[in-house]
Amino acid sequence: MSESNHPGISGLLAAHVSCARLGIIGGGQLAGMTGRAAQSLGCDVIILERDAVCPAARLGLRLHLGDWNDPEALIQFARQVDVITLENEFVDATALMWLEECGHKVFPTAASLALIQDKLIQKQTLVRAGLPVPRFESVDSCEEVLAAAKALGWPLVLKARRNGYDGKGNFTLHSAKDVPVGWKKLGGGTDKLFVEAFWNFSQELAVIVTRGRGSDRVTYPVVETIQRDHVCQVVQAPAALSLELAAQATDLATRAVTTVGGVGSFGVELFLSATGELVLNELAPRVHNSGHYTIEACECSQFENHVRAVLGWPLGSPRMTAPAAAMCNVLGRRRAPGRAHGLPEALGVSGAHVHLYGKTVSEAGRKMGHITALGQTVDEATATAERAARALHFDTIDEN
Amino acid sequence: MSESNHPGISGLLAAHVSCARLGIIGGGQLAGMTGRAAQSLGCDVIILERDAVCPAARLGLRLHLGDWNDPEALIQFARQVDVITLENEFVDATALMWLEECGHKVFPTAASLALIQDKLIQKQTLVRAGLPVPRFESVDSCEEVLAAAKALGWPLVLKARRNGYDGKGNFTLHSAKDVPVGWKKLGGGTDKLFVEAFWNFSQELAVIVTRGRGSDRVTYPVVETIQRDHVCQVVQAPAALSLELAAQATDLATRAVTTVGGVGSFGVELFLSATGELVLNELAPRVHNSGHYTIEACECSQFENHVRAVLGWPLGSPRMTAPAAAMCNVLGRRRAPGRAHGLPEALGVSGAHVHLYGKTVSEAGRKMGHITALGQTVDEATATAERAARALHFDTIDEN
Repeated sequence: MSESNHPGISGLLAAHVSCARLGIIGGGQLAGMTGRAAQSLGCDVIILERDAVCPAARLGLRLHLGDWNDPEALIQFARQVDVITLENEFVDATALMWLEECGHKVFPTAASLALIQDKLIQKQTLVRAGLPVPRFESVDSCEEVLAAAKALGWPLVLKARRNGYDGKGNFTLHSAKDVPVGWKKLGGGTDKLFVEAFWNFSQELAVIVTRGRGSDRVTYPVVETIQRDHVCQVVQAPAALSLELAAQATDLATRAVTTVGGVGSFGVELFLSATGELVLNELAPRVHNSGHYTIEACECSQFENHVRAVLGWPLGSPRMTAPAAAMCNVLGRRRAPGRAHGLPEALGVSGAHVHLYGKTVSEAGRKMGHITALGQTVDEATATAERAARALHFDTIDEN
Repeated sequence: MSESNHPGISGLLAAHVSCARLGIIGGGQLAGMTGRAAQSLGCDVIILERDAVCPAARLGLRLHLGDWNDPEALIQFARQVDVITLENEFVDATALMWLEECGHKVFPTAASLALIQDKLIQKQTLVRAGLPVPRFESVDSCEEVLAAAKALGWPLVLKARRNGYDGKGNFTLHSAKDVPVGWKKLGGGTDKLFVEAFWNFSQELAVIVTRGRGSDRVTYPVVETIQRDHVCQVVQAPAALSLELAAQATDLATRAVTTVGGVGSFGVELFLSATGELVLNELAPRVHNSGHYTIEACECSQFENHVRAVLGWPLGSPRMTAPAAAMCNVLGRRRAPGRAHGLPEALGVSGAHVHLYGKTVSEAGRKMGHITALGQTVDEATATAERAARALHFDTIDEN
């Protein structure tokens, strides 16, 4: 059939030819990696983000410039896509509910987000479902913190109910004299806070659970996350656990995501005590740093499975394709331009998969990239990833 | 250090913070996959391409709109990047030589391309290096074709010296009466042609060789490519060959790329006869369809290694991470909009890695995407990839 026999085709071409149009709220590296996975499946991707210079834009994802707290920006964005998803938990659930009422598809749903983004409500929800969490109490004043300390004991962790990440929004109180300091630091009085019993964990664990729009779901291996200064440094997959504990962690993570009606990839953080007791620490309603290793180490990554889940497509296998993997975050050490130094040295480490996010500015503790390595053991993989990560830095700016 | 203590930083931020700026001539899927690999390593990528609607643009890579045959467009493009590379062999080597003379870095070099893009010169170069190729002769008229037939016998393959791909630019002559037909079809008289003895191969093989700017190089496994209507349908890795033949194919491929002074990933096609004789068929001075499987199946893909090579960085390991892999091209069957149908069914095939290029129009034989699968055997991997590829089509346009 020749082109001239088919006058309708140019009109059809004007229509979008993608499989689906996916909108992502937020333009960081999580949106970047999710957007790439969606593009490989033939989707159009649009990002809602205030900052034109963001990691997602550097990967070439199309931006809709705007503030997700601005209803007008949200609705204009929503009109351009088939499904909206999130790369962070900071957009207000009531705004998402309004989008849903306007007929837009949002996954994870506003109802899920409402159960997660306020960490006090999140813990109350988990407790109501019979799931184990560290003991906690709502507090509205320094006096209430002191009262809670009587029940929960010292140390006590003061936490912001919303918008915390990487240790921001947490303050450990060792005694009564720390209370006013922490209260002021976290903006008590303005921002809502709660307290949690200090959980003396021996290991921090995490599990990515991807749940589809039906009742389908997959669960990735339990990993161990190693933090320093409240920021994840290394993720080791699989975690060194008995089969029984791994099964228990997987079960808790799955039940937690099911409890909040999650759709998409969710990061579930857990604590394991020296006595073998597991509790849920926190749910993230999105792809998660602890799942970056899945790009190279699993049959289908957390990112691709997130896309499949929110678009209602069949989920891929979370099976690892190597006996072990490690992911090492590449963190900024101070304020400096985001140009990475030492890349040839990092690439010289055989087996290291280098991911740089292209952020324009490095800051102390800021995630500038990550390295994944596979291996026969987690120790071998960790050594490879750490060697490559150590080669990278952002510090040669003349600071005089 | 606070921001106010560092007045110089905003100025520094205005400068580019990427590790390197890579320019790619051509905006198809090969540029798209190469560009992505470069972005993951923190590079800025710019594509020189006439068509604003191209697969590389759909992946969000930044375009410099222009024709690579236009010197002004080439030089403007060159000024924006640190290194220029190619996704096809159609840009003229003399234009690249001029860019080099202007001080721009081009890899593969103009000298390499000049030895490859004219297939007659390519074969003469390989013969001079003592490498085996099918017998060939230069022809300037139908009479010379008939004269060549006396030496080379029937059937005889008439070939365009430049710009052929996927069987375009080839015409098989079975007897003297086919000569004027083939001559006319390939534009003889206007375009330069040559003839080649018909090689009765039992297997078509391919090898990706990546050669760095130093003398470093890596060689990927020998694969078997299965064509239909001159278009590659399936690639199986590794090819079912004796160790001796695989070593011989690897050696020929490596010597071919070294002979032309190649820098970057090169696709080398070979023919194997039923009697075990190997000859070189063709060199492609670029990443190659037969190496797409390396994204999932090898430690470092042909795309990332191409980026590493042309930027002068250490090469990654080409080692396969699974016993076997297969890649199946997703080909258009007729002219239709490029929207893929059957994606959920394709994603339902466990272990299938779906790549859709987002082309706006499907054509008969056009590469619209590909599927890769890993397995314990090539048969298992091929079955998985083919099942997913069969689920995808682009044909539901109403054609009445």
